[in-house]
Amino acid sequence: MTSMEVEVNWEVFVAALAGVEVITDAAQVAKLSQDYHTFSPILQRDLAGKVGDIVVRPATEAEVLRVAAVCAWYRIPVTVRGAGTGNYGQCVPLHGGVILDMSRMQRIGWIEKGVARLEAGVKLAALDKKARESGWEIRMAPSTYRTATLGGFVAGGSGGIGSITYGQLRDRGNLLALKVVTLEDEPRAIELRGDDVQKVNHAWGVNGIITELEIPLAPAYPWVELIVTFDDFMTAASFGQALGDADGIVKKLITVFAAPIPTYFAALRQYLPEESHAAFLIVAESSLEVLPGLIQEYGGKLTYQKSAQDANKGVNLWEFTWNHTTLHARSVDSSITYLQSLFPLDKSLQTVEQMYHYFGDEVMMHLEFIRVNGAVIPAALQLVRYTTEERLNEIIRYHEANGVFIANPHTYIIEDGGRKQMDPEQLKFKQMVDPYGLMNPGKIKALMAS
Amino acid sequence: MTSMEVEVNWEVFVAALAGVEVITDAAQVAKLSQDYHTFSPILQRDLAGKVGDIVVRPATEAEVLRVAAVCAWYRIPVTVRGAGTGNYGQCVPLHGGVILDMSRMQRIGWIEKGVARLEAGVKLAALDKKARESGWEIRMAPSTYRTATLGGFVAGGSGGIGSITYGQLRDRGNLLALKVVTLEDEPRAIELRGDDVQKVNHAWGVNGIITELEIPLAPAYPWVELIVTFDDFMTAASFGQALGDADGIVKKLITVFAAPIPTYFAALRQYLPEESHAAFLIVAESSLEVLPGLIQEYGGKLTYQKSAQDANKGVNLWEFTWNHTTLHARSVDSSITYLQSLFPLDKSLQTVEQMYHYFGDEVMMHLEFIRVNGAVIPAALQLVRYTTEERLNEIIRYHEANGVFIANPHTYIIEDGGRKQMDPEQLKFKQMVDPYGLMNPGKIKALMAS
Repeated sequence: MTSMEVEVNWEVFVAALAGVEVITDAAQVAKLSQDYHTFSPILQRDLAGKVGDIVVRPATEAEVLRVAAVCAWYRIPVTVRGAGTGNYGQCVPLHGGVILDMSRMQRIGWIEKGVARLEAGVKLAALDKKARESGWEIRMAPSTYRTATLGGFVAGGSGGIGSITYGQLRDRGNLLALKVVTLEDEPRAIELRGDDVQKVNHAWGVNGIITELEIPLAPAYPWVELIVTFDDFMTAASFGQALGDADGIVKKLITVFAAPIPTYFAALRQYLPEESHAAFLIVAESSLEVLPGLIQEYGGKLTYQKSAQDANKGVNLWEFTWNHTTLHARSVDSSITYLQSLFPLDKSLQTVEQMYHYFGDEVMMHLEFIRVNGAVIPAALQLVRYTTEERLNEIIRYHEANGVFIANPHTYIIEDGGRKQMDPEQLKFKQMVDPYGLMNPGKIKALMAS
Repeated sequence: MTSMEVEVNWEVFVAALAGVEVITDAAQVAKLSQDYHTFSPILQRDLAGKVGDIVVRPATEAEVLRVAAVCAWYRIPVTVRGAGTGNYGQCVPLHGGVILDMSRMQRIGWIEKGVARLEAGVKLAALDKKARESGWEIRMAPSTYRTATLGGFVAGGSGGIGSITYGQLRDRGNLLALKVVTLEDEPRAIELRGDDVQKVNHAWGVNGIITELEIPLAPAYPWVELIVTFDDFMTAASFGQALGDADGIVKKLITVFAAPIPTYFAALRQYLPEESHAAFLIVAESSLEVLPGLIQEYGGKLTYQKSAQDANKGVNLWEFTWNHTTLHARSVDSSITYLQSLFPLDKSLQTVEQMYHYFGDEVMMHLEFIRVNGAVIPAALQLVRYTTEERLNEIIRYHEANGVFIANPHTYIIEDGGRKQMDPEQLKFKQMVDPYGLMNPGKIKALMAS
């Protein structure tokens, strides 16, 4: 594939980077060449044995600039990673080279008037803790919140806990500025502001090395966590939609699980009766007063409630949502894999119901309600009882044929996943910042064709 | 109409209320028997000469209970008012009696964790000022925010500035508790919590005397005010819809005016070029970075921007929005009146466009984007060049025939306005708290029929 398989004298490389932390131990390099693509049996197979040659761990932008210059000089592939919590193999190098681990760049520059400026390696939980000192918190986070870095989330993520209010990272206003280091002969640090951030947002680390980010924060409400159970899945789903549409109720999470998914959550067994369908909610304390009315309207049963003041005690419900649901299910049954879907805007949830009945136990429904273009719709990370690749693709095709958008998590090719087509602006920017095509090579179909 | 025209010995009445402030001066009583229904030529005609006999101004709940007992004993009609800033004649007594002016009850009980408890006569601006000391503010307010009371807003209002994020007062979660004093033989103060508040919410003061309220607050963002002008009205309207749908942008107001409405705002003339259509916006400071991109996408021109730190200096844009638009227009041309509409959910805004072209200059388009059941749609307070009652009704009927919901502001009959049908729960509650039908009599069709 192009000119990737170059001969590199790694001793010379390391010498050129004197002062920058490097890891050459093979076991550690192999570990840092991984992410959580193992949720997919397909990716597990396709990415087996793919490792980098060396890990570089810069601590400052100046060091990143030096690494970039040396990699550009020697034409060495560079795969950027944060905590490696992603599930799409985007942290796995197809052509060896440098694994650029950004997790040492943990400086929070400033938090002012609801905006934070920070380095790419800051962990989401660390930012949140700092922001809360002044009454703010992050707008959205994946379920890997405790370990994931902001740079990794922006490069590879799309939304999560909080998206029911703020939409997704790609939505205008959820990312204010980015600084990236180029892989040119003379690398530069470029600041992108406003709409220009989209040139790098959700580009899986192929469009420059993100070193700093500026993001808007959300007001830190006192949040309450709740579990509501239902006898019937579609009633649970309709409850989720109604809560999502209740503009007067401030919320951060609306997750709905069809049975038997709740049985995978051992730690919560006492709150989840056998064969029940469940909604996991995070709601502002000031909205708590009116929740029983809505729960009653849908015949739900409140089985668990954790007050805002106990937020840091015991389990947190969000740990069981988004792709942590898949993690918990796989810890019980490792043959389980998952889908990522966006259902069409339809408050009666007909397509959800159709898929639920059509696939039965083979595709277990896991809804995450989010805002998309101003409206609340169910995203889904359905659990799939995996049999064969053919059957998995058949399941995906059936969903697509019925109007469900699938961001296929069983491919590392960007266009075959959620994006479908590379943004021409992103491609143009890539050609400028990565003229030798060194960043995470082999992941973009549009570049292979050329 | 029923048994309202009773003989009351007002000297005896006043003596029975010894210690409670009363106003008997005819000019003052007449003034306090008014609201802003004069925006409607129909109401102006129909309510001409309607005045109360006496004004009572209680300072405490204990005093309200005494007034209620005396009024129930003598079967005296009671019309409750706050600041009288409403536009539907609901503060105008049809059958004389007592005007119960709640504006002395101004105690703010507490503000904690984003919830406020306060007396009904607290002015919205006063509450806001107090709430901001701890980082909160009111979720929504009418354009009469400086003078309107919270009790009056809940009884007679529906939403306003802030509804683009939090929906309307009627939405579950925007009102947590209410205390009302009944007009029974032995009046009680009843606390309603959760869904029960709907028995009194938006019931125009016919369902008990609201003495206290508990409402959730919103985080007090630093807000920026902006004017964007457009050459074409429908482009301005589409921009408003797109901004409303932008989940990553935190906003408080999206108002769109068709030309020539901006010409009525003399104080803002320099920012509003001749024949331009304009959007008036209030957006969080942290969303400012990304606004130029959206403005550019719609070919708008930013002509005015007031920073958050200057919020208390000079004019505030919200003073020109909602029904203050009508006020400003009428100060230039008193023949102008208005409609209140809710357009159907349709992002292409086809019905808006149809009405805009069909009526031309006779019905000048004034859109207020709000959230309704989880989606952003344009409400409208169109300015109407009034000619005859027949023509006004024709205009209303044409809108209704084309799927536009009209909350007719030219009637004081509740069911002929926005409500269409009295909520059976509200009627049932009314029969309990007002067994003699003394509260604001003559305004409910359902009771006249019985």
